[in-house]
Amino acid sequence: MAMNAARILPVLGWLSSYRRADLPGDLMAGVITAIMIVPQAMAYALLADMPPQAGLYASIAPLIAYACFGTSRTLAVGPVAIISLLTAASLAPVAAAGTDAYQEAALVLALEVGAISVGLAVLRAGHLVNFISHPVISGFTSAAAIVIGFSNMKDILGISVPRSDSIVDLLASLGAGIGGTNWATFAIGAGGIAFLLLLRGPLTRRAKRLERGRMAVLTLLRAGPLLLVALATLAVFALALDTTAGVKVVGHVPTGLPPLTLPLFDQALWLALLPSAVLIALIGFLESVAVARALAAKRRETVDANNELVGLGAANVAAAFTGGIPVTGGFGRSNVNFDAGAVTQLAAIVTAALVAVSVLVLPPLFGPLPPAALAAIIVVSVLQLVDPQAFVRAWRYNRADALALAATFAGVLFLNVETGILVGFGVSLGLYMWRTSRPHYAIVGRVGRTEHFRNVKRHKVRTDPSLLMIRIDESLFFANARFLETTILAEVAERPRLAHVVLICSAVNVIDSSALESLETLIHELKDAGVAFHLAEVKGPVMDRLARTDLLARMAPGQVFLSTHDAMVALEAPAPVAAVG
Amino acid sequence: MAMNAARILPVLGWLSSYRRADLPGDLMAGVITAIMIVPQAMAYALLADMPPQAGLYASIAPLIAYACFGTSRTLAVGPVAIISLLTAASLAPVAAAGTDAYQEAALVLALEVGAISVGLAVLRAGHLVNFISHPVISGFTSAAAIVIGFSNMKDILGISVPRSDSIVDLLASLGAGIGGTNWATFAIGAGGIAFLLLLRGPLTRRAKRLERGRMAVLTLLRAGPLLLVALATLAVFALALDTTAGVKVVGHVPTGLPPLTLPLFDQALWLALLPSAVLIALIGFLESVAVARALAAKRRETVDANNELVGLGAANVAAAFTGGIPVTGGFGRSNVNFDAGAVTQLAAIVTAALVAVSVLVLPPLFGPLPPAALAAIIVVSVLQLVDPQAFVRAWRYNRADALALAATFAGVLFLNVETGILVGFGVSLGLYMWRTSRPHYAIVGRVGRTEHFRNVKRHKVRTDPSLLMIRIDESLFFANARFLETTILAEVAERPRLAHVVLICSAVNVIDSSALESLETLIHELKDAGVAFHLAEVKGPVMDRLARTDLLARMAPGQVFLSTHDAMVALEAPAPVAAVG
Repeated sequence: MAMNAARILPVLGWLSSYRRADLPGDLMAGVITAIMIVPQAMAYALLADMPPQAGLYASIAPLIAYACFGTSRTLAVGPVAIISLLTAASLAPVAAAGTDAYQEAALVLALEVGAISVGLAVLRAGHLVNFISHPVISGFTSAAAIVIGFSNMKDILGISVPRSDSIVDLLASLGAGIGGTNWATFAIGAGGIAFLLLLRGPLTRRAKRLERGRMAVLTLLRAGPLLLVALATLAVFALALDTTAGVKVVGHVPTGLPPLTLPLFDQALWLALLPSAVLIALIGFLESVAVARALAAKRRETVDANNELVGLGAANVAAAFTGGIPVTGGFGRSNVNFDAGAVTQLAAIVTAALVAVSVLVLPPLFGPLPPAALAAIIVVSVLQLVDPQAFVRAWRYNRADALALAATFAGVLFLNVETGILVGFGVSLGLYMWRTSRPHYAIVGRVGRTEHFRNVKRHKVRTDPSLLMIRIDESLFFANARFLETTILAEVAERPRLAHVVLICSAVNVIDSSALESLETLIHELKDAGVAFHLAEVKGPVMDRLARTDLLARMAPGQVFLSTHDAMVALEAPAPVAAVG
Repeated sequence: MAMNAARILPVLGWLSSYRRADLPGDLMAGVITAIMIVPQAMAYALLADMPPQAGLYASIAPLIAYACFGTSRTLAVGPVAIISLLTAASLAPVAAAGTDAYQEAALVLALEVGAISVGLAVLRAGHLVNFISHPVISGFTSAAAIVIGFSNMKDILGISVPRSDSIVDLLASLGAGIGGTNWATFAIGAGGIAFLLLLRGPLTRRAKRLERGRMAVLTLLRAGPLLLVALATLAVFALALDTTAGVKVVGHVPTGLPPLTLPLFDQALWLALLPSAVLIALIGFLESVAVARALAAKRRETVDANNELVGLGAANVAAAFTGGIPVTGGFGRSNVNFDAGAVTQLAAIVTAALVAVSVLVLPPLFGPLPPAALAAIIVVSVLQLVDPQAFVRAWRYNRADALALAATFAGVLFLNVETGILVGFGVSLGLYMWRTSRPHYAIVGRVGRTEHFRNVKRHKVRTDPSLLMIRIDESLFFANARFLETTILAEVAERPRLAHVVLICSAVNVIDSSALESLETLIHELKDAGVAFHLAEVKGPVMDRLARTDLLARMAPGQVFLSTHDAMVALEAPAPVAAVG
């Protein structure tokens, strides 16, 4: 009973068995993650064309919801860059950025993402996400990071450009507007990028080599974004850069806890946002579960994919009802949380409490905060997502995968995210099918007097002109069924003295109906040509299925041999005319 | 040189080495096939909503073109039922049946089908057709036969109904019009069906048991359709059924050889017909190559898929320039041709010559020919294509395939041919991916003191609590990459004393980039948990690829073992705590 309750509501599991010894770690991690999340959440809200407080609101209730329903003990959820980019792309067609309608649509989107996640969990269809292959994710991530980076250039330069999904339009607009650069804004943005890169790169490397006080220094460095926000705000306030130099500022941010918001029930809007919501749910789940799994493995814990879907679903529903934006588990912040000593989701609850305090206390100070500083935080955080090496690695290992990666990258960069991912998916699938449709096969012969059989092309082996033994290295299914038929018939046509064909099935995991039909045709055709067809090394599950058909009866006098050796012994010509080839 | 010329123009091959001994067989087969093809060609032209002579024209030049370019020695090409159904469905949206525009569009369609076939041959992409799985073809054929059967009911009943892709609309129209049945027409149609069924069924079975004169009787029975056409025409003419009883007749059929026709070059029309042309080219190729291959195998000849595409392409181009309709190799007539003794394509040239004579001589006699007789020929010929047993067989063998079959059948029957095939293709692919995404795996242990290893669930085997040996029965690729990771991590989480994981790769034919990435993550996660990861029984081509990556370095101290036995010997705990499980 208690077990079942804990399965549905994992919080009951970890909270009832909470150990006091874990408290210091959870508290510390909660504080450090909050310091990191406050400026990031505002930055990612702006990236989604939402007001900064929406990002903060999305970092309170969703964290608590995940803590109750999720199974990862150390995952930190909240707004993340790629989900915010997808959010902006999804909302742009249905409402104008900055309007109430836009913010209301964001709530509907979050609710849909939540409902779809929970729905996938109910259908136990979490592994659907596996159909997005690694090269597709890799190409998508690199391209999305580039789009995000350039989308933020307008805030760094202090100019206005129309939003666009296409990098070409975006670059054209930036090029046209670059003459109007606001130099004070640019100084903040470019200075901010340099500052963060310095902290993240050389200083962090040096800090990691420290013997003493390493943790304290690293924490200080992780507070870099918060420090940048504070410094930039102070600079704008002190020099009145907003009035004297025209630096854009965030302006009024409401003080107080998140409002209770009810997403609209507008059928047309729901339908319009549905495809995007599916994509956001899948991509969010993909990112989140990868992080959760990596962290869980470090402590030999496990993460249940379906429970993860419920946890992320709950978090998004919570975001929808508290004025937030779609959220997921973040890679960077989860690692920080883990490294800072988080043991349970209590750390996330501490983070949520601190973000709640910050929306009660900090907003009056945010007035002079320049978006350029937030843009600098985004640019630095997405820089590490651009991974040209992934293409090089894929190209060296498997050109088909490299092609899928390049297609996704180009699609996302030059068309839009949805099309890019669809193109990549299609290319992955098509190339996989193409490969399996022309499987590797080997005609084998006996090595010396042993029971070993090897490819006649690679080894000196004994064969018999009346016997063809062929090993196919792939499951037999519709895409390669006829390949096998053609291949065997072509080999038979070349061997006038042939009497037996043995198909060695050691690598055949499945034979589907098409392949079965093809085998039946082949057996029939071979019979017409006076050749018997035999099978060898058929796996248990495959044999079970074949036994339900009349294939074995049709094969007669052909037989099923346990091993290739048995087949050769039984079928070799009585007075063996052995050839060494 | 001669060899190369014969590869491009196979006619040079068989004609230069023609043996006089083959002449009687070829002549006889040519005559019998011509007797069969003349009424069929007219019937299939009407099915395509074209005038009867178009079918005859499509049975002259295309046969000669195929004889020159095709590699099958006994294939008989010409109009076939399913291609004519597809032709009517393709032309309906671009022109009204019976107009000149409709007939011109048919020429464009034939030319496009020809060009696409040749194009696929040039790209050596003939095996693309394999992606249409057997259950999809089976569901499509049964549904198309039902649609064709009911489409012809209007001619059997002698009523007019609007043409429709949907069986529901068709049945509704037939139901509404059935009150207007012309009883004389119905007598011809229904009588014709009964006559043909009698000839094909009981009489043919009895003829096959004859000791003497079997061939002559069978030839007479095969002339059944021609006999029916002659009898029906005579009856209409003698009783003046067209004027006294309102029986519809074919009317004027022009006398003379096929005209030289130039397909229109209208860009909009070409684009509109393109998707249908691709489908017709693929389906036609599929049907034709299956027949050609089956016949070739009987004499240990081979058929080259790419040459077949060229042959069918040439036949369709010939049809386009001589007032025909799209053609392909027919199952029934090719078998008749083969059984009647055809040895080379000379038989097809004889058939073409006889059809040419018939269009010079017979048309004045066709005036009183009732379409009801032609409809009866079609109904009987498609009856055998409806195969409900295919579903039962698929269901017993593999439910996923049965589902793909049912989806295609329903799609073709209730929506339209293109959608039905696309739906079936999607279902086949999706189910295949689903299956491979959750592959079978087995945790194995040693059988007694042997070198054999078997599934711990099925056999009494020795295992070691510090060693997990797992065999995965599928190639590792994006759809199942994470499955493996999750599965192994879950098994590791259950075994606190574990120190080594061995992945047995005997059934792994490919490891793609996604799976490689997943393995790297897994190795990293296992290392974090203090567990070493090893591989065993990796195939040559897979190992070659892995050697190009740093996976093996990352695995250290994990190793690659040649066999599972080697792995167990090397990794077993020094003081073995053996458990029998």
